[in-house]
Amino acid sequence: MMEFINGGVTAPKGFRASGICSGIKKNTAKNDLALIMADALCDAAAVYTTNRVKAAPVFLTKSHLSNGKARAILANSGNANACAPNGEENALRACEALSKAAGIAAEDIIINSTGVIGQPLPIEKIEAAIPLLAEKIKKISPENKEELLSGGDEAVLAIMTTDTVKKQAACTFKLGGAFDVTVGAIAKGSGMIHPNMATMLCFITTDCNISSGMLQKALSSAARRSFNRVSVDGDTSTNDMTAILASGLAGNPLIAEENEDYKIFAEALEKVCVSLAKRIAADGEGATKLITCRVTGAADEASAEKLSMSVTSSSLVKTAMTGADANFGRVLCALGYAGADFDPEAVDISFESAAGKIPVCKNGRGLAFDETLAKEILSRDAITITCDMNQKDGGFEAETYGCDLTCDYVKINGDYRS
Amino acid sequence: MMEFINGGVTAPKGFRASGICSGIKKNTAKNDLALIMADALCDAAAVYTTNRVKAAPVFLTKSHLSNGKARAILANSGNANACAPNGEENALRACEALSKAAGIAAEDIIINSTGVIGQPLPIEKIEAAIPLLAEKIKKISPENKEELLSGGDEAVLAIMTTDTVKKQAACTFKLGGAFDVTVGAIAKGSGMIHPNMATMLCFITTDCNISSGMLQKALSSAARRSFNRVSVDGDTSTNDMTAILASGLAGNPLIAEENEDYKIFAEALEKVCVSLAKRIAADGEGATKLITCRVTGAADEASAEKLSMSVTSSSLVKTAMTGADANFGRVLCALGYAGADFDPEAVDISFESAAGKIPVCKNGRGLAFDETLAKEILSRDAITITCDMNQKDGGFEAETYGCDLTCDYVKINGDYRS
Repeated sequence: MMEFINGGVTAPKGFRASGICSGIKKNTAKNDLALIMADALCDAAAVYTTNRVKAAPVFLTKSHLSNGKARAILANSGNANACAPNGEENALRACEALSKAAGIAAEDIIINSTGVIGQPLPIEKIEAAIPLLAEKIKKISPENKEELLSGGDEAVLAIMTTDTVKKQAACTFKLGGAFDVTVGAIAKGSGMIHPNMATMLCFITTDCNISSGMLQKALSSAARRSFNRVSVDGDTSTNDMTAILASGLAGNPLIAEENEDYKIFAEALEKVCVSLAKRIAADGEGATKLITCRVTGAADEASAEKLSMSVTSSSLVKTAMTGADANFGRVLCALGYAGADFDPEAVDISFESAAGKIPVCKNGRGLAFDETLAKEILSRDAITITCDMNQKDGGFEAETYGCDLTCDYVKINGDYRS
Repeated sequence: MMEFINGGVTAPKGFRASGICSGIKKNTAKNDLALIMADALCDAAAVYTTNRVKAAPVFLTKSHLSNGKARAILANSGNANACAPNGEENALRACEALSKAAGIAAEDIIINSTGVIGQPLPIEKIEAAIPLLAEKIKKISPENKEELLSGGDEAVLAIMTTDTVKKQAACTFKLGGAFDVTVGAIAKGSGMIHPNMATMLCFITTDCNISSGMLQKALSSAARRSFNRVSVDGDTSTNDMTAILASGLAGNPLIAEENEDYKIFAEALEKVCVSLAKRIAADGEGATKLITCRVTGAADEASAEKLSMSVTSSSLVKTAMTGADANFGRVLCALGYAGADFDPEAVDISFESAAGKIPVCKNGRGLAFDETLAKEILSRDAITITCDMNQKDGGFEAETYGCDLTCDYVKINGDYRS
């Protein structure tokens, strides 16, 4: 019933987007400033990083969203505006420049930044680029699908830092058998990825008619099962944010409670978020493969999540995957220090990819297995590690997403600031 | 008053040690089996890994130490005897072989293993080597200092895995102005290092006359401030153990309560453990430098420890150190997700080494600093990151120890089993 379609934030009705190069990043003409504009005021919601050290735009967006309404999302890459001089003032100046250029209230703007922490935001460059960016958006005709899609592409390019692939997703589904609803999203994230009750940058739009309260509920739940289950390097960013705007233009009856329509919407939103979360993990800095850890038979969902995150976050599991080495002992070890109680003598483990599936551990003890087949399985670019905990009354499961750890991660991060 | 001296476990009176190659490791004639023997039954204590998945010898040692007495420590490298078939049986067989060869009770033996997880322990090789190893020890004369030291060297070589340097330490101090007491220790540890209320392998001897209860108290406290403050890769091993034997041969009045002598002994023990903990961090797999994070001005010691461990464990801080990049934003970020409450606007950060000291952050904001000097400071092989939290009534501090993250870590762990 739910169907993935082309595009990202401009797939739903009522949104335009674009990007521009304002010159924040050194020696490149790549886009660094993204704008997503709704045709009218939207219901809105967001989740934020739980890091005690938060970037200035995170505080400003929280304050702007206190009424559950927003009209635009403005984001730059190349500088996080975190722990930087005049951070609050510069975030506000960017909102004011957009307010003036686009004729919308500064309080209706969601703003964020991503990039290096601790350096002053080059606000003059951003202020100079904003009128041009607003102008680009105005020129996009809401009827011209190609222009809309290409504007969305410009926006996703503008929030990329060390990302090597564009991350966007969109899906459509029907509500009440009659109303076509679309959810679209763009995301960035490649390093400093270990979100906690929040996420890296992800901006979502929908034309669903839904209250900001229900939007917040659906977003928090989707983020918990998608972005909060990704780890690239165990570092929770100062700038994590996922925000959503709902234009209501699908025309469905307003969703204001947890009814059947809410469930359908929330499920679609979760699928879009999981799809992006997996792409973020697969594009982890220096990564060559996506590692999914599927924990089943756990005592509860929270335990399943802890156990699974411990495996995908382990440096030793990650480097074993780099070397396509079926070192399941490291998987058991990571389960053991996850902080969840379980009986080690009950655990079964297997490795799986497009090349096949191989059980390597039964009842907590190593099995004899075909090393050649194991190597072949682990040489593919998407690996699933399944850990069946087989706990008494253990019907709970969770999947988390990570990547291998390579020399390129070290190289990318050895000299990130220059 | 306390003085570091040459040697390790054979420095205190009443202990001999040796090592041998039993053939556990493939294609090498390196030692893989270590034995530390006391001349008579000792008071003993140990701390163990908190990993839910524990190696078989950890369980066996716990049971053997239930009476607070032990006579020998037997340890092999090359195989962890964890999650392996017949693990308990094989650990017991090794103790029985030593019992027979050395004429001591199997229950008086502390045993552990370190190496690859999940593969069967080659017990026949170990059983064959034990009589030869016991014979080597018998031949060492307790009066021949050179033989004692060289036997200690053989033992420390036998517990090394990916370690590149021998780790041993010993110190002497006086009790009651009259009795010369010595503490000696050997340790191994290079990867899978993130101990939690326990440690990697460390075996300690002393000739102090001290009850097993007081010994346990001093050891737990020393481990908490040394090995529990080291992280190489965030992975808590299945085999972590620190054990101590006290022969009582120094002749000091028995320490059976927390008196002045206890304090002097506990302080010396902590210094030996901290010295080894730093060497373990500096010799982390692939590491080129020791990173010490010193947190001051925290609200309590537990917060100081959490904040400091978060910085030394951060992949992004570690890779910045690899590249000698003064990216203090990553330090602030790691403080922020440590799980301790603090005011980000009060934090000062500086980098320091033998090349000098440079403040990089004041009141949570980046300072302009000399990048050339910073690069020079961070290019040395021992760096201290000082984070002054400046919290109200914040007189608490903690130091933790880590290392940089390099391509060599990835290479070492990409194919560890073969």
